[in-house]
Amino acid sequence: MNLTSDNIAPAHHSVLSALGAVNAGSSAPYGKDEVTAQVEELLAGIFECEVGVFLVTTGTASNALALAQMTPPWGAIIAHSEAHVLHDECGAPEFFSNGAKMVGLPGVDGKITADGLRALLARDYWTPPTHVTPSAVTLSQATEAGTVYRPGEIAAIAEVARDRGLRVHMDGARFANAVAAVGVSPAEMTWRAGVEALSFGFTKNGAMAAEAVVLFAPDLIRNLAERRKRGGHLWSKGRFIAAQAAALLEDGLWLKLAHQANAQAARLALGLEARGLKTAFPVEANEVFAHLPAATHEALKAQGVGYYVWSSDSIAPHRAGGADEVIARLICSFATEPQEIDAFLAAIDGAGAQKKASRSPGTPLF
Amino acid sequence: MNLTSDNIAPAHHSVLSALGAVNAGSSAPYGKDEVTAQVEELLAGIFECEVGVFLVTTGTASNALALAQMTPPWGAIIAHSEAHVLHDECGAPEFFSNGAKMVGLPGVDGKITADGLRALLARDYWTPPTHVTPSAVTLSQATEAGTVYRPGEIAAIAEVARDRGLRVHMDGARFANAVAAVGVSPAEMTWRAGVEALSFGFTKNGAMAAEAVVLFAPDLIRNLAERRKRGGHLWSKGRFIAAQAAALLEDGLWLKLAHQANAQAARLALGLEARGLKTAFPVEANEVFAHLPAATHEALKAQGVGYYVWSSDSIAPHRAGGADEVIARLICSFATEPQEIDAFLAAIDGAGAQKKASRSPGTPLF
Amino acid sequence: MNLTSDNIAPAHHSVLSALGAVNAGSSAPYGKDEVTAQVEELLAGIFECEVGVFLVTTGTASNALALAQMTPPWGAIIAHSEAHVLHDECGAPEFFSNGAKMVGLPGVDGKITADGLRALLARDYWTPPTHVTPSAVTLSQATEAGTVYRPGEIAAIAEVARDRGLRVHMDGARFANAVAAVGVSPAEMTWRAGVEALSFGFTKNGAMAAEAVVLFAPDLIRNLAERRKRGGHLWSKGRFIAAQAAALLEDGLWLKLAHQANAQAARLALGLEARGLKTAFPVEANEVFAHLPAATHEALKAQGVGYYVWSSDSIAPHRAGGADEVIARLICSFATEPQEIDAFLAAIDGAGAQKKASRSPGTPLF
Amino acid sequence: MNLTSDNIAPAHHSVLSALGAVNAGSSAPYGKDEVTAQVEELLAGIFECEVGVFLVTTGTASNALALAQMTPPWGAIIAHSEAHVLHDECGAPEFFSNGAKMVGLPGVDGKITADGLRALLARDYWTPPTHVTPSAVTLSQATEAGTVYRPGEIAAIAEVARDRGLRVHMDGARFANAVAAVGVSPAEMTWRAGVEALSFGFTKNGAMAAEAVVLFAPDLIRNLAERRKRGGHLWSKGRFIAAQAAALLEDGLWLKLAHQANAQAARLALGLEARGLKTAFPVEANEVFAHLPAATHEALKAQGVGYYVWSSDSIAPHRAGGADEVIARLICSFATEPQEIDAFLAAIDGAGAQKKASRSPGTPLF
Repeated sequence: MNLTSDNIAPAHHSVLSALGAVNAGSSAPYGKDEVTAQVEELLAGIFECEVGVFLVTTGTASNALALAQMTPPWGAIIAHSEAHVLHDECGAPEFFSNGAKMVGLPGVDGKITADGLRALLARDYWTPPTHVTPSAVTLSQATEAGTVYRPGEIAAIAEVARDRGLRVHMDGARFANAVAAVGVSPAEMTWRAGVEALSFGFTKNGAMAAEAVVLFAPDLIRNLAERRKRGGHLWSKGRFIAAQAAALLEDGLWLKLAHQANAQAARLALGLEARGLKTAFPVEANEVFAHLPAATHEALKAQGVGYYVWSSDSIAPHRAGGADEVIARLICSFATEPQEIDAFLAAIDGAGAQKKASRSPGTPLF
Repeated sequence: MNLTSDNIAPAHHSVLSALGAVNAGSSAPYGKDEVTAQVEELLAGIFECEVGVFLVTTGTASNALALAQMTPPWGAIIAHSEAHVLHDECGAPEFFSNGAKMVGLPGVDGKITADGLRALLARDYWTPPTHVTPSAVTLSQATEAGTVYRPGEIAAIAEVARDRGLRVHMDGARFANAVAAVGVSPAEMTWRAGVEALSFGFTKNGAMAAEAVVLFAPDLIRNLAERRKRGGHLWSKGRFIAAQAAALLEDGLWLKLAHQANAQAARLALGLEARGLKTAFPVEANEVFAHLPAATHEALKAQGVGYYVWSSDSIAPHRAGGADEVIARLICSFATEPQEIDAFLAAIDGAGAQKKASRSPGTPLF
Repeated sequence: MNLTSDNIAPAHHSVLSALGAVNAGSSAPYGKDEVTAQVEELLAGIFECEVGVFLVTTGTASNALALAQMTPPWGAIIAHSEAHVLHDECGAPEFFSNGAKMVGLPGVDGKITADGLRALLARDYWTPPTHVTPSAVTLSQATEAGTVYRPGEIAAIAEVARDRGLRVHMDGARFANAVAAVGVSPAEMTWRAGVEALSFGFTKNGAMAAEAVVLFAPDLIRNLAERRKRGGHLWSKGRFIAAQAAALLEDGLWLKLAHQANAQAARLALGLEARGLKTAFPVEANEVFAHLPAATHEALKAQGVGYYVWSSDSIAPHRAGGADEVIARLICSFATEPQEIDAFLAAIDGAGAQKKASRSPGTPLF
Repeated sequence: MNLTSDNIAPAHHSVLSALGAVNAGSSAPYGKDEVTAQVEELLAGIFECEVGVFLVTTGTASNALALAQMTPPWGAIIAHSEAHVLHDECGAPEFFSNGAKMVGLPGVDGKITADGLRALLARDYWTPPTHVTPSAVTLSQATEAGTVYRPGEIAAIAEVARDRGLRVHMDGARFANAVAAVGVSPAEMTWRAGVEALSFGFTKNGAMAAEAVVLFAPDLIRNLAERRKRGGHLWSKGRFIAAQAAALLEDGLWLKLAHQANAQAARLALGLEARGLKTAFPVEANEVFAHLPAATHEALKAQGVGYYVWSSDSIAPHRAGGADEVIARLICSFATEPQEIDAFLAAIDGAGAQKKASRSPGTPLF
């Protein structure tokens, strides 16, 4: 059992088939191929508008490139205090932006709020040139806590941002899971709510390695080609990124796979609830954060069950487990089978039994 | 009355005289002159050891250059949550280090502690290459709260740092005030306590514009010459920075001026205490943070009295004034006269009287 | 007919099969998978030594990451005046190195020489901190002129470099073609001749997108993991880069495919010679630079035959075609068929005939 | 005798007096003082237009800041092959621009030409995103060869630049010498000829350390304040840079001092001519490049006469001395006295006599 991350999954078989299908004859290099053009069309269709599209292969590249388009080096990029982009990319946004400052904004359940952003921006602090200037806000969708912003929440945040001249980015490493969870259109989840650039993740959702920087604001398109090239992210045989994205975008496969992953997370959440185990955050997409008794945790780890302990994942103050417990981050992917969830729950049951036994050796149980 | 900052002061007359004294004939350019050599000797004497010395003209340059020597781009520089270097230099450390991450560590009275640092470094967070790697810690001396680290505190922090491979920097924009306050030797305050590089500030203490990066760790000297040149901080007519530093270092003028500034801050603190007004932090050097009733503040501002309101100076959570008060940051320089302090206190008295009057217009005062 | 580049080719079928073979079950992310470990072993075997291996997906990333390990920002990276890394990567080395200077060194047939390098380094120029400091030399192998450095040439250059403290990098976008051409071992072509880091290209030689930074100098390994992550080049599903490299490295497929490509270039060169057309450089690997009469060129272009005109490819002074001719860059890949070469030659014949006809309209041809 | 550079000179006494004159009482920090405002007015008057003014203290900072405003990281800055900004600033433009590429353009007598620039830009090379995009051209005025662009030459270059979207910068480290030499107005020499930003140097012309970035194109003003702060170039006690500039700008002192320096160069050139010694470039401002017989050079150096040998100053191919000679770079400053020139010429005479003697040892001298 391994619920470490959705990035340990293989690629979906349709993705591999698509690679084979485009692997014939010569093709214009550097993204001028037909498959790339097809992806651009597919995305325009899905988002119901003209979009700029830049394909890359990691979420880090996608986020860092998009954010670098949105900020000068003396800008501040505002993200949730526990955002991946703030902590888990080894400073990639700082590198690509030539040293912009990432500013963490706390918020419950992994979300920032319009009020929180407004208050931060209203502080008597942002006086240039002594201080950096807020330039962009980035929202993780789904969040690092497994929750999902609703279009209204996004729109409220975007309005605050727009009023102060900040650009709005969405880190959509799990965009598919978020869209599947809420059931609104991709357009409603993004540009109609004020999002100007999206890092649309395919990798966690069934690709080998494919991410699209999708730009809704036309002015953000300019020179991203140079940034991508200069960052070493322009593939010569571009059809092979594009084919992955196309395979997932066609016939709604991306949403279907996201629904599958979300469904397993829901199954897991129900199983935990049935055992009286609480979750730290609402389970809305494909991530579950479970309060596990310390002894259960140790027993599961002894069995080699794979997951991360959430408290280890941030330097920001955050909601950690209590004294006798940990918060386990459990992530389901499109490839997670119901049996795996059931086995995990069974392992908890076994660990719990073991725990009780081990905690009261020699004590009558009745 | 203007207690805004010690950087509004003029230069000390000895500094100007020194400029005149070196202004004769030609001189080797780019820091190869005799005056620069003399400053190096003076600093070696004052610190009782061999030191690397790089003269520049702003504290921002001094800090950013020193920190860039201590961190790779994927490093984390740890500073107090309210440190000047974290907030007030428009991202200069990020620029000079090519995007290292500044990490704020809270601590009372403007100081971080060895325990705080140890706990931060002990977090199960710093896993490369996902996360940045702690590379340096920087201490403001005197702090942004006007307090002063004691050698034992510094040594304890430096020991934690050394154990984890972090370099230790001291932002000594007000180093003179700190040394004067504690009465230990410059060596005890720095390298004997584990400090490896010091940004030694002269500007606030009577220079026109002179700061020295003083390096106690020989390996930090390598290539700082290139960094300084590349940053545009190598003067061709170097004697004119050096002469300023020399004028202050000779005959202990730097300490004498710092004592003067500290004395006025003490006079101010006493005056506040006599009026029942509290200070937010212990007054140890040349900065006073005074709780002022809101009405007093308004009256002072109406009279054009110059000072900053502290709550406006950070995005980190910090100790701000209560509902009916502000915390005023009041800074004395070598040029502050006792009369100015007395006038400020008198203005408070007047404001208080005015306030009471204005608060109950038409109400009998008995 | 399309001889534009070897990057317009598809992937070799073995590469695609390998992707399918590793696409089962979960796998440790971020390069900790078994396939990546296998590639590391394969490379150690092929190079007959311990190596550090960092897989990425573009040559630009591979070169820029390797060079950034070798130079400080105030360093100079010396490359042939027409090197790809100097001109065709949109400044990626400058970006990854935080602004190191690329210095072009002319040399015949696309090669720099030990004498040329020695003379450049001997100039009374490199005085820090005014000037940058030579830090690395990079050799394209095969070169941008389609020629190949011999181990003795490399060793002589590397000796000059080592004597002056420069690191030695090889841009091996066409490393396979070079090794196949010369018939020496990969070890002789690299570390035994003094190369300390190799950008080993697989993409042009049959991969979808796979390049390995291969480090022979152990000190260059340190922190490359952070650079790669920060550059957005660490794949979560790392097995899918590794599988490509493994497929090519196993059973010598990489050399077999390179031999195929080289053979077609030789066939093309012979055909040109038979037609009295000269090549600009010795044809040693898979690139042919042919002097084509201007009219022939126009006729070929009119037919849609794909190739680049070399004179357009550099701002450095270089060998361009004469007044009535162009130099056509013609590149063969593993996928180039003999028929394609023959068709190209036939097109030349047709163009020539057409040309003669068009040049003397009304003149009897017998 | 020391003709090494104009940066070995002291400051003019008026500059020192001005420092004393502004050194009274407190003053608004960070360039908000009245003296800075006065400099802005003086410059507006001298240039007969509104200008943006940013005072710094080194030419390197001034050039790098101005150029960074003009280029994206993927841009190319075109300079003369032997320009100071290309060679002698340790990569400062690359640092401040986050890695833009400096491209050298050859040209006789230290000048690029409109035709040369047009030809460079017309090359079939500048294809983004593979290649960098020309973004700016910078002209040294006076040039590194001691020559001076005429307004017509500048206007022709600027027109080519503007047609291709390049911004136009002038490195005026010796702007005063150039204006004095040609006798046109500062406006004619700059914005009326198409210059959009000028690095106006005061240091070589009598200041301690003062340079002004003068912006004629209003859009270049935006955010230069942040760049300057972030680069560590914003002085807190700004009046002390401003006072230097003001002292030189008032009553035309800057031009008077430049005329003095130019006059000594002319005297030197005449003296050389009278001795049958040629100059490498036309002597137009305050720099003289003299062909000296090798033996004369050795004799002068043996006497400790100070000057640079020009051939050592570039990695670009350039005009160096013949086999038996060197080219000596001889620079006069405002502080150079006629006696010093005469002594230098006398030393040449003596060296020549000595040379003949030393060349025939064993020959009776009578």
